Amino acid sequence: MTEADSSRVAVLNGPGLGALGRRQPEIYGKRSEDDLRKLLASWAGELGLEVEYSQHDGEGELVSAIWSSSPRCGSLVINPGGYSHTSVAVMDAMEAFPGRVVEVHISQVLSREPLRRRLVTARSADVLIAGAGLEGYRLALEVIARPDGSSRA
Amino acid sequence: MTEADSSRVAVLNGPGLGALGRRQPEIYGKRSEDDLRKLLASWAGELGLEVEYSQHDGEGELVSAIWSSSPRCGSLVINPGGYSHTSVAVMDAMEAFPGRVVEVHISQVLSREPLRRRLVTARSADVLIAGAGLEGYRLALEVIARPDGSSRA
Amino acid sequence: MTEADSSRVAVLNGPGLGALGRRQPEIYGKRSEDDLRKLLASWAGELGLEVEYSQHDGEGELVSAIWSSSPRCGSLVINPGGYSHTSVAVMDAMEAFPGRVVEVHISQVLSREPLRRRLVTARSADVLIAGAGLEGYRLALEVIARPDGSSRA
Amino acid sequence: MTEADSSRVAVLNGPGLGALGRRQPEIYGKRSEDDLRKLLASWAGELGLEVEYSQHDGEGELVSAIWSSSPRCGSLVINPGGYSHTSVAVMDAMEAFPGRVVEVHISQVLSREPLRRRLVTARSADVLIAGAGLEGYRLALEVIARPDGSSRA
Amino acid sequence: MTEADSSRVAVLNGPGLGALGRRQPEIYGKRSEDDLRKLLASWAGELGLEVEYSQHDGEGELVSAIWSSSPRCGSLVINPGGYSHTSVAVMDAMEAFPGRVVEVHISQVLSREPLRRRLVTARSADVLIAGAGLEGYRLALEVIARPDGSSRA
Amino acid sequence: MTEADSSRVAVLNGPGLGALGRRQPEIYGKRSEDDLRKLLASWAGELGLEVEYSQHDGEGELVSAIWSSSPRCGSLVINPGGYSHTSVAVMDAMEAFPGRVVEVHISQVLSREPLRRRLVTARSADVLIAGAGLEGYRLALEVIARPDGSSRA
Amino acid sequence: MTEADSSRVAVLNGPGLGALGRRQPEIYGKRSEDDLRKLLASWAGELGLEVEYSQHDGEGELVSAIWSSSPRCGSLVINPGGYSHTSVAVMDAMEAFPGRVVEVHISQVLSREPLRRRLVTARSADVLIAGAGLEGYRLALEVIARPDGSSRA
Amino acid sequence: MTEADSSRVAVLNGPGLGALGRRQPEIYGKRSEDDLRKLLASWAGELGLEVEYSQHDGEGELVSAIWSSSPRCGSLVINPGGYSHTSVAVMDAMEAFPGRVVEVHISQVLSREPLRRRLVTARSADVLIAGAGLEGYRLALEVIARPDGSSRA
Amino acid sequence: MTEADSSRVAVLNGPGLGALGRRQPEIYGKRSEDDLRKLLASWAGELGLEVEYSQHDGEGELVSAIWSSSPRCGSLVINPGGYSHTSVAVMDAMEAFPGRVVEVHISQVLSREPLRRRLVTARSADVLIAGAGLEGYRLALEVIARPDGSSRA
Amino acid sequence: MTEADSSRVAVLNGPGLGALGRRQPEIYGKRSEDDLRKLLASWAGELGLEVEYSQHDGEGELVSAIWSSSPRCGSLVINPGGYSHTSVAVMDAMEAFPGRVVEVHISQVLSREPLRRRLVTARSADVLIAGAGLEGYRLALEVIARPDGSSRA
Amino acid sequence: MTEADSSRVAVLNGPGLGALGRRQPEIYGKRSEDDLRKLLASWAGELGLEVEYSQHDGEGELVSAIWSSSPRCGSLVINPGGYSHTSVAVMDAMEAFPGRVVEVHISQVLSREPLRRRLVTARSADVLIAGAGLEGYRLALEVIARPDGSSRA
Amino acid sequence: MTEADSSRVAVLNGPGLGALGRRQPEIYGKRSEDDLRKLLASWAGELGLEVEYSQHDGEGELVSAIWSSSPRCGSLVINPGGYSHTSVAVMDAMEAFPGRVVEVHISQVLSREPLRRRLVTARSADVLIAGAGLEGYRLALEVIARPDGSSRA
Repeated sequence: MTEADSSRVAVLNGPGLGALGRRQPEIYGKRSEDDLRKLLASWAGELGLEVEYSQHDGEGELVSAIWSSSPRCGSLVINPGGYSHTSVAVMDAMEAFPGRVVEVHISQVLSREPLRRRLVTARSADVLIAGAGLEGYRLALEVIARPDGSSRA
Repeated sequence: MTEADSSRVAVLNGPGLGALGRRQPEIYGKRSEDDLRKLLASWAGELGLEVEYSQHDGEGELVSAIWSSSPRCGSLVINPGGYSHTSVAVMDAMEAFPGRVVEVHISQVLSREPLRRRLVTARSADVLIAGAGLEGYRLALEVIARPDGSSRA
Repeated sequence: MTEADSSRVAVLNGPGLGALGRRQPEIYGKRSEDDLRKLLASWAGELGLEVEYSQHDGEGELVSAIWSSSPRCGSLVINPGGYSHTSVAVMDAMEAFPGRVVEVHISQVLSREPLRRRLVTARSADVLIAGAGLEGYRLALEVIARPDGSSRA
Repeated sequence: MTEADSSRVAVLNGPGLGALGRRQPEIYGKRSEDDLRKLLASWAGELGLEVEYSQHDGEGELVSAIWSSSPRCGSLVINPGGYSHTSVAVMDAMEAFPGRVVEVHISQVLSREPLRRRLVTARSADVLIAGAGLEGYRLALEVIARPDGSSRA
Repeated sequence: MTEADSSRVAVLNGPGLGALGRRQPEIYGKRSEDDLRKLLASWAGELGLEVEYSQHDGEGELVSAIWSSSPRCGSLVINPGGYSHTSVAVMDAMEAFPGRVVEVHISQVLSREPLRRRLVTARSADVLIAGAGLEGYRLALEVIARPDGSSRA
Repeated sequence: MTEADSSRVAVLNGPGLGALGRRQPEIYGKRSEDDLRKLLASWAGELGLEVEYSQHDGEGELVSAIWSSSPRCGSLVINPGGYSHTSVAVMDAMEAFPGRVVEVHISQVLSREPLRRRLVTARSADVLIAGAGLEGYRLALEVIARPDGSSRA
Repeated sequence: MTEADSSRVAVLNGPGLGALGRRQPEIYGKRSEDDLRKLLASWAGELGLEVEYSQHDGEGELVSAIWSSSPRCGSLVINPGGYSHTSVAVMDAMEAFPGRVVEVHISQVLSREPLRRRLVTARSADVLIAGAGLEGYRLALEVIARPDGSSRA
Repeated sequence: MTEADSSRVAVLNGPGLGALGRRQPEIYGKRSEDDLRKLLASWAGELGLEVEYSQHDGEGELVSAIWSSSPRCGSLVINPGGYSHTSVAVMDAMEAFPGRVVEVHISQVLSREPLRRRLVTARSADVLIAGAGLEGYRLALEVIARPDGSSRA
Repeated sequence: MTEADSSRVAVLNGPGLGALGRRQPEIYGKRSEDDLRKLLASWAGELGLEVEYSQHDGEGELVSAIWSSSPRCGSLVINPGGYSHTSVAVMDAMEAFPGRVVEVHISQVLSREPLRRRLVTARSADVLIAGAGLEGYRLALEVIARPDGSSRA
Repeated sequence: MTEADSSRVAVLNGPGLGALGRRQPEIYGKRSEDDLRKLLASWAGELGLEVEYSQHDGEGELVSAIWSSSPRCGSLVINPGGYSHTSVAVMDAMEAFPGRVVEVHISQVLSREPLRRRLVTARSADVLIAGAGLEGYRLALEVIARPDGSSRA
Repeated sequence: MTEADSSRVAVLNGPGLGALGRRQPEIYGKRSEDDLRKLLASWAGELGLEVEYSQHDGEGELVSAIWSSSPRCGSLVINPGGYSHTSVAVMDAMEAFPGRVVEVHISQVLSREPLRRRLVTARSADVLIAGAGLEGYRLALEVIARPDGSSRA
Repeated sequence: MTEADSSRVAVLNGPGLGALGRRQPEIYGKRSEDDLRKLLASWAGELGLEVEYSQHDGEGELVSAIWSSSPRCGSLVINPGGYSHTSVAVMDAMEAFPGRVVEVHISQVLSREPLRRRLVTARSADVLIAGAGLEGYRLALEVIARPDGSSRA
């Protein structure tokens, strides 16, 4: 079931992340979604990975995107945005993803309001990175690129 | 108040982490605390950082270590172990630390039992990394070494 | 308002159920969504019913599907998947469905983790069947086919 | 431990179900417990099963009935009535029952008051059927009679 | 369904009340269950009522007693003892009782520990009297004897 | 401190009870506050008691009324209305009342909505009577008139 | 960022509101969605506003609609339907909307069942109007049309 | 019971609203209670209504004011201030008011601290308006003046 | 807004405190309210302050007293009694008081029953003193008299 | 009231414990109830005690057994099984037992699921022993046999 | 056990208080721990007391300090810092301290975030003073110095 | 990893237990820590065990003591005192201990205040003994000395 290309990584963003750079820049930074795409491509190149990026406002679309990426991609980097705090459906899809799953949050959600401190989808993530800004995505790619470097193995 | 050496990083481990490699290796990995020290030194070298490592079983010792490192160290990487879930005192000390604070968990605490899903100290962390094994410490050092690379700035 | 065809049944599946047979087969069984379609057709034939099947990853698509089926279909069999535990919108649409509503869960959700023991949409179901595997759909069709057999009437 | 006769089914009813037909007929229907006995015998005959029916007002009697039926009966259909919402003792006995356990509720308990939405004994049921009226017992017998038909196996 | 004798009252006591006079007399008083029987007979005589008294340690026996008294008795006075705080089964049986139901507590349960402040069975009582000692039973009989005196009618 | 006249009873009603007979008569009955005054006088006469009646919409006025009645009245019958569910101040005043305190509710508050099932002031009542309609006040007077008849003493 | 046309208002309806007039008319009224469109146009005309109306069953579509309307529309009137009680994603999008946000509910949600008394998205609304029927939308338009009339300014 | 003048509206303000304009003007605006009185009179004139305004710091006074206005006034506009979050007594009086009840909050209480997000009295309001500043009172008067315009009827 | 006399202190006591010395003297001490008045005058004299004392059983009267004292008094010492645990209205009035607010409790409420451990009004106090008996009022006056002695300034 | 034979011990087992050795042997061990009886007799002999053993599936029977043993037995060893987590009635009977009460659990209930971590009856036990297997009963007998050895006395 | 010197006071500070003046000066003030020592000595001198000051980052050290001070010191002034909100161990030690215990908080913890509103150790304090800045320590010393001045005695 | 001496037992006491005999002797008994040491030595001798006793006020020291004893001692008897109710760090260290772990409480914590009824560390104990006084330690040693006597094996 893991014939997926192990160097191919699905990077999925949830609702509102299409507005990167415009939405509350004091929290989410000034770089746009386009900047993020370019950064992802450049970081992936350095690490010998290939990235499939997409952004989805809909919970169902995010669920579908997870399912549809699994035959091709060996691992998943996901920022479920607002769904992180409520969605059992996204949590289930992440759980069923055969490869490694890294959940990324641009801001440090645990130091924000109580509503955001309840992380539902993270229960299905292998790794969680929060508060590192866009750099969190780079860290996520590194986690995937060096699975046996200094890991638990 | 920030005359601390910006390339000097305090890496503080909480209770039980002296037993790395011996304690539940299926969760915490097989590498020992000594391996971690060496890895830290090597990663720091690559990134142009200097690491001050110490491990503390006591909540108060951890609090003291945070306070006493702040005049010398520009940033803090901390794994508060079991205190992560209960300690307001450690949270307070982290809050008062003048530089950047990265909280690291070797395992993905949010996918474990409910008791561990309540993160208290993380409310005072700038960045949270969980589930990346020992590699989480390396990611933390990177976050510190490249503050303006692709960050929110 | 109930000019809908009383022998026509909408069978709606929620997120992830397109992956039947691939997703956690120890929980959801080995049969695929295609197998389910065929079984539904065959069971319906035996019971003198006609089935309109569709699967939806999106919460809104599921809501739309419920609304759009109501003018044609006299009853509804629904497995809301992960939305079962959170969706007031799906609950509302089920409540507004003029005919009988049977909620089906392949696994016995009440013996799983706490998150799944909270059933929101079921508050609007006339009948709930959980844990009977794919056979649960057949039982649901029977409930609909024999409304006056040994029912409460 | 499963030398029990696989075609023999214990059907156990909890408190108040001796008053079927008299108690709140708008909720529980007009058929009496005697009607239920006859229906059970007839349904069982069609499905090649044999039913041992009994009704118990007492929590302890229900527990005892579960235990004493297990050497003879290969499966269990149970409606624990009011104990469904509170009894750890019945839950334990159901858990320990070696064969398949189907919990039946005549009304759809999940759409009633909060007190009834907490299902304790159901945590030990393999299958749950609620809201199908007396027909729920027939569905339960079917689940038992066709274990390998379209099940998860 | 109300052919029951309207002047006949079932008085049912729950667990531990057989030990009246012996158990924590500073809370429950010094009079014995036998004293209570005599008082009930005498009070009933004055009010033109007839009392059927019984005491039951078992939850199921209490449930059965409620059901079996309903064809004969027009009203019910009940002190469910410890079951008051937990029993959905007793609450259901009281709900189904066709006549008036008065719940009596010898002590003022609402001024005792939190566990006792949660009253479950009282949700099905028409009248609640607590803290009047054995006299509470007399008040209950009065409530029944004078249904139209100064009531809400 | 109990030189108060032991045959004198303060009967205090809380907010909204001035509207008896007009407010939700299906719950509170058709008799007016004036009817209640007359009934109280007549019942008191029969029992050799004297009643001081007053009604107060204000929480503070109710508190004041409790305090000011204590030098004259040996016991207190109180229906705190809506304050029953929230007022620590009324609870405190009742606690400090030197004589016996009987709390009366016209309706059976425990079988109404959750908000009304939380009884705060009742923690300071010696006796609680709920659901007996206006007759509840008569029962309360009886409790006071016959302190040693069949009481716990 | 507010070059949006200040007289242009996005009016967004959530799930189920396409069925206005058909769904539970005793709660939501008898007028259809088409009636609402006409009313909106007419009210807007009177107030010198222009309305962009759309209805969305999907949570993600609603999120997208909020984002895509912000460059054109100076303010937002939104009835998130069932998502009002659960959606952090919609709440986030409303928070990020640069102009004024008015949340409208046709029924008075706070007097309905507990599930509906929890309002999540309203935390990001500047104004909340509930229970005024379709007229609530007119009131919302007024709030927008007269920003400095008798406002807090 | 509704012989009250249908064009006469009681407008009742709760605690602290006498200090309008002085208290936290960044939340409650700069206009004084006197300004509000004038605005109410002027708005009422335009709408063919007559307003009876009063302000009450006391919970009991507010309860009394609701009761005493009901024989004269056909509808009620109320801002219960701090009692909104706790008062069952005010909720009861609002419930018993025979005409339409509109609850108004100057600020958007649902986006403030948790204590203010619990709305108790609103359970008895037909319409709720929050966050529209003083204009909220005007909207409330409109709701009353146009009962059959575009309402649910 | 702070033209109030900075040496003038409003000392306000809530419900039941008029009964000082009589009510539960083992908790509240034996000194009467009159003793307290004299002590306040004497302590104020020593500290160069002037005290305006009043006691209020009503929540609304307490709210009014806070509001009406603010134009004259530069600071506020308040013991809200039973309202401390429930009153948002008193909390709001304290919040709006322009000068310093010291909340005093004669007993150490945090070591009493859970109901009293919930402190609502204290959220608006600058200083809290509990358990020091009547002396707590003297400490409160000192806090006010020496604002810059060893304070945080 | 303690004329009971101080060397006579009632050992009472709750529901399901008649199935010792058959029920979940990985948790409850392989020894049967009969083995337990023999062990109890043998241990009692060594310690100079006499044991009265009985097992009860019913909550009421267990309550009765506690009450009926108290005139004869000086102490009580009890394993209330599933009732441990819910029964106020058993808790009350244990509280009223005049001699020492030791509650025994074969498994370590506090390390099992949340439902079992709520111990109700244990509030009335003098000593609690959990997780020592059948040996727990021996320890319980020791506690009783050596009351003044190294106890608190 | 109270041969301790009644004029000798242990003043114990918890974690982080060694950083007074450096840590969040907008909350904790600008004076250093050294300033506090001098103030304590000077205040003690005026009041005829002698102070033993120490500061402890560790929970256990704080516990030890409480225990070791009790033979010498007649009373205890303690600011448990972050342990105030969680430590049962410190609460126990304070409970066991034979003399008077005053808990001091520099800031008004009850008006800060929810985590800080839960006061655990305060349950064992005789007096609580919060929000008076460093002056709180002086007030605490006064409470001790004048035990019979205007106290409850 | 279990080369530890199986007859060597670490007995660790938590905070406050150094004060045995002095602290609340009505709860913890009159014997001192020194008496306990002697009793442990004597009991161990009888059972063929060797005891390593130490007491630790600090949470971290207790954690360290658990870790450092594991290479030498085959089993652990621990009374974590106040940390029992809060410490995840001690729970973790107990979990990681390779041999058998028995948690002992001198008093019956489950019948004390709610704060003490929450047992955190006990989740990692194999056996729990509470309320047997110092004798609890002897029972713990027996549990260790007779691992296969009448255990679950």
